[in-house]
Amino acid sequence: MAIVVQKYGGSSVATSEHIKAVAEKVGHARQTGDDIVVVVSAMGKTTDRLLRLAGEVSRDPSPREIDQLLATGEEQSVALLAMALHDRGADAVSLTGPQAGFRLEGRYGSGVISEIRPDRIHDLLGEGHIVIVAGFQGMNSLGDVMTLGRGGSDTTAVALAAALGAERCEIYTDVDGIYTTDPRIVPEARRIPVISFEEMAEMSWRGAKVMHPRAVELGALHGVEIHVRSSFDEGPGTVITGGERLERLETRETVAGIVHDYDVARITLNAIRTGPGTLSKVFTPLAERGISVDVVVESGAQGGAADIAFTVKKGDFEETMRLTREVAEELGGAAEGEQDLGKVSVVGTGMLNRPGYAARMFRTLGEAGIPIRLVSTSEIQVTCVIDAGNVEEAVRRLHRSFELEQVAEEVAETSQDGRTDV
Amino acid sequence: MAIVVQKYGGSSVATSEHIKAVAEKVGHARQTGDDIVVVVSAMGKTTDRLLRLAGEVSRDPSPREIDQLLATGEEQSVALLAMALHDRGADAVSLTGPQAGFRLEGRYGSGVISEIRPDRIHDLLGEGHIVIVAGFQGMNSLGDVMTLGRGGSDTTAVALAAALGAERCEIYTDVDGIYTTDPRIVPEARRIPVISFEEMAEMSWRGAKVMHPRAVELGALHGVEIHVRSSFDEGPGTVITGGERLERLETRETVAGIVHDYDVARITLNAIRTGPGTLSKVFTPLAERGISVDVVVESGAQGGAADIAFTVKKGDFEETMRLTREVAEELGGAAEGEQDLGKVSVVGTGMLNRPGYAARMFRTLGEAGIPIRLVSTSEIQVTCVIDAGNVEEAVRRLHRSFELEQVAEEVAETSQDGRTDV
Repeated sequence: MAIVVQKYGGSSVATSEHIKAVAEKVGHARQTGDDIVVVVSAMGKTTDRLLRLAGEVSRDPSPREIDQLLATGEEQSVALLAMALHDRGADAVSLTGPQAGFRLEGRYGSGVISEIRPDRIHDLLGEGHIVIVAGFQGMNSLGDVMTLGRGGSDTTAVALAAALGAERCEIYTDVDGIYTTDPRIVPEARRIPVISFEEMAEMSWRGAKVMHPRAVELGALHGVEIHVRSSFDEGPGTVITGGERLERLETRETVAGIVHDYDVARITLNAIRTGPGTLSKVFTPLAERGISVDVVVESGAQGGAADIAFTVKKGDFEETMRLTREVAEELGGAAEGEQDLGKVSVVGTGMLNRPGYAARMFRTLGEAGIPIRLVSTSEIQVTCVIDAGNVEEAVRRLHRSFELEQVAEEVAETSQDGRTDV
Repeated sequence: MAIVVQKYGGSSVATSEHIKAVAEKVGHARQTGDDIVVVVSAMGKTTDRLLRLAGEVSRDPSPREIDQLLATGEEQSVALLAMALHDRGADAVSLTGPQAGFRLEGRYGSGVISEIRPDRIHDLLGEGHIVIVAGFQGMNSLGDVMTLGRGGSDTTAVALAAALGAERCEIYTDVDGIYTTDPRIVPEARRIPVISFEEMAEMSWRGAKVMHPRAVELGALHGVEIHVRSSFDEGPGTVITGGERLERLETRETVAGIVHDYDVARITLNAIRTGPGTLSKVFTPLAERGISVDVVVESGAQGGAADIAFTVKKGDFEETMRLTREVAEELGGAAEGEQDLGKVSVVGTGMLNRPGYAARMFRTLGEAGIPIRLVSTSEIQVTCVIDAGNVEEAVRRLHRSFELEQVAEEVAETSQDGRTDV
């Protein structure tokens, strides 16, 4: 009997009516004969409400106590979902992260899973129960509750699927799959039936909000096939996989999708002296403060002076400017920056073998009169930093230019049928 | 260095402002040099809100899942109080019931404490922390969360005080102590400065809502002196004790207070055949269904037929009538009952030696024209069941008749001063 892990996000369990609807979906899944493990997030805005309370009692709440506080949100959801399943006559047991065997290490608020001891889950499944597990949390070596931080519940679900040897991990959310781009910007955007782990990870890092890249990478690492589906309908969704179905696909589709991101600030060090260790001097102080740097461009040194430009999230802009200004002056140059920017990325595994795609992206933006501020490329993506005001137009033009709306419908259909065979 | 356990109820932590006020009180207590352990209930109406959600998703929620759900309320409070203490510069650590070493057994929703392993609390106190413990909860042998049921957080506090060898357990609540009777009925009601465990347990069982009798009895068992005080002012409150201070007092005060209760229904079996085992035949079916019976009166058998009358809580009335009717018919009699009743009790340790007090109670009610329906007496209380509409008048007359408003103020003052020496 196969094990299937399902994950329902906060919007899927926002009210008691939502919880009852999830119980119905879970109950149906159980009736197929599979063993079902369900991972649940906190109800709707619970986490926000708890963080607001924390902010009211403390100017700088301790991470340990924040974790103790936030973990209760998921604990409420699992108990309520178990009750709703009982009400439908199903056998179900709720487990907190610690009860489910999640052992975490690292810092409060951003724990990493060191081990999952799934004995109790296996026992409960063996007794015929549906097992409901609180997402986002586990226990550290002190016996304290710790949360996983960003991407928490998706990561819980995929990690659990790996630990249990589950056949697949189903992520239920408020959209019906991964799209070639944001359908609010491009109405012709198309649901992607099958996508590789690598492409999905890039799309997540670069702006697609549906799945957290951490969970996607964990799925790639352990070969856990992930199905992204809607909580509210029965559609086939998107399968994220590394398996043979993908190989067929790879010969056809070279660009999977267009993603964008408005949380972008640019910082440039102008005319600094460069030499061995310059980049380290610039970026080490940022890394020490946990500031993530994305697109980095170093212009060729001319007469010993060079420019270095990079992007950070807007929330890190002020601190980054302060730190960078010191380094720039030390290196005989100056720092400047701007915040009103966005990024647009073309993502696809086939791009490596077809360098023409980067050129097509630049040409498309050029024809639209959209200036490109910075460019970064990797094996499976090209990202352009542009003015925030140009992002929507860029997404629309790129989607059309890469003919993403025109993929034959039978491809999607084949994949839909394929899904149930996996 | 003495250990002091403080307990704050739900109304004391109802909002973030309340939590900050509690943090201030706790911080002051810490500055006296004592080691402080704080037990906290769920915020305000949290438990009610969670139970309403449970009722929305399930017609008959499982007790295990109810416990999993409700325990989160206290877990939120402890984390928030720890944060508020940090914000004041105090060292504090929050612990859930399981983390604090509470091991429970029995049924979900009404667990009993089998063991407290206080090692972690001692370690944290040794490191200079204030320790905040979630009331009302612990872990059973399966590793599951379990709640203590009624009187939960008071019981947590007193049990913890016993396990830690604390000097005293301070119960902070929304009134400033135990009163000779309900001040809403008798404005002259007087705060009782010192009261015995036995009297307090009787008053709690018989209607005083401030302390749960379970916690009082635990205090008596382990000799934990309990101080009941207001969360909102600095008054001396009431000391519940079995120590030497009480002996002085016992020679003076024979009646501690007048309590009342409206949750009373009467059931009478009329003209039944009695013999050995009759009472068992009547009450065993009730005990099997967890129905508590209070005042029981058996009239002398006349010609082999007798009457048995007793009271139950109103919520148990219908089921009790159904069960009792069967037994009554089996015994050749009939059952009848009524619900619109109340109880009024005079409680005091000195009553045993002064039988005149019961007579004074009956005379007082008689002079007021209040019919007495049933009477029950024990060593330290006399309880009369009367019509609900007569309860307030009975309380007023009894308070005056037993001269409870006239106790010399110096008694209270002596006890206040004495308090800090304990």
